[in-house]
Amino acid sequence: MSVWLESLITATPQEGFELAITLARKGVGYIQKDEAVKARLREDYSNNADSLTLASQVVAINFQTVAAANNYWRK
Amino acid sequence: MSVWLESLITATPQEGFELAITLARKGVGYIQKDEAVKARLREDYSNNADSLTLASQVVAINFQTVAAANNYWRK
Amino acid sequence: MSVWLESLITATPQEGFELAITLARKGVGYIQKDEAVKARLREDYSNNADSLTLASQVVAINFQTVAAANNYWRK
Amino acid sequence: MSVWLESLITATPQEGFELAITLARKGVGYIQKDEAVKARLREDYSNNADSLTLASQVVAINFQTVAAANNYWRK
Amino acid sequence: MSVWLESLITATPQEGFELAITLARKGVGYIQKDEAVKARLREDYSNNADSLTLASQVVAINFQTVAAANNYWRK
Amino acid sequence: MSVWLESLITATPQEGFELAITLARKGVGYIQKDEAVKARLREDYSNNADSLTLASQVVAINFQTVAAANNYWRK
Repeated sequence: MSVWLESLITATPQEGFELAITLARKGVGYIQKDEAVKARLREDYSNNADSLTLASQVVAINFQTVAAANNYWRK
Repeated sequence: MSVWLESLITATPQEGFELAITLARKGVGYIQKDEAVKARLREDYSNNADSLTLASQVVAINFQTVAAANNYWRK
Repeated sequence: MSVWLESLITATPQEGFELAITLARKGVGYIQKDEAVKARLREDYSNNADSLTLASQVVAINFQTVAAANNYWRK
Repeated sequence: MSVWLESLITATPQEGFELAITLARKGVGYIQKDEAVKARLREDYSNNADSLTLASQVVAINFQTVAAANNYWRK
Repeated sequence: MSVWLESLITATPQEGFELAITLARKGVGYIQKDEAVKARLREDYSNNADSLTLASQVVAINFQTVAAANNYWRK
Repeated sequence: MSVWLESLITATPQEGFELAITLARKGVGYIQKDEAVKARLREDYSNNADSLTLASQVVAINFQTVAAANNYWRK
């Protein structure tokens, strides 16, 4: 796979949160590489409350990592 | 997306907890952007015990991050 | 919402554990505010083994936060 | 509730693990206090693989807390 | 129960990972002690994808603890 | 089992993420060793949205460990 993650450091917390979303998606992308399948599954889970909560949980776990890496963007 | 997260620092633990709730919601909001769909799903999961517990778990994970960022609001 | 969380510091580990339970409940309470609905749902999940384990998990995650805030109540 | 948790410090890692189990049970015990109900539910979940894995997960989370409190029992 | 956990320190990361698996199993073993029941349940969950992922999650949580205890086996 | 994990240290965050995926798979591999069964289960879960999210969660937890071990690849 080509380079997609060069650093965990981001300029702002919001960019860090968006990186956490990328990490959550990549965790899926390494397992299911077929774009058509992923599009169909996204349709499924984006209309199910528990699926969305579960996805938000993965983002939260990754955000812990990114936030720690950035020393919580303390000034 | 416009700026919604400028800092993880809050004045009090309660504001930190409320920020954790915002983070949990944003984790969903980046995936499902349709407000009508979100309103319907909220109706679903807010009346299901396990869905609420799962949502509370995402808040708890995000609160870990916010609390650490604030050095636990120790005086 | 009125002030309900002024500090994460508690005198004893047990009080810290009880604060973790409060945090878990508040995570639900911000989403579902209707007391009658919450009472009905509590009836549901308090009689289901997996629901109780899931609730205990949210308490465990919050207890991690409270315990760290209190430096594990080390003497 | 009477005092059941005076310290997170234990003499050995195994005692720490057993304390983690106690914490997981207490997380349930604060919600469902009826001993007869708990006995029935225990019968249910102790014969279901996923329920047991879920319970083991709560123990693992609590063990993180107890192990950190004890500085991992490093000599 | 006899002594089964004397230390979280291991010589290598792989031994640490294997200790994490032991901790996950012990989390179950303290609840369900009947070997015949455990063998039957193992048959169930070892043939179900989500059950295996859930078990791998418990291992991952325990590996966090063991890795921290060993200061990540940094040289 | 032969040596498969000699170090948690990686040159880049992306290699660290890929190691986290390996750890997640090994967590399964120690339980279910039959390659044919694993191939069949992989077919199942790689076509189910929640199964993929759950797998991504295990990767996220392991990535926390690997990232901490590498001090977040800070320069």
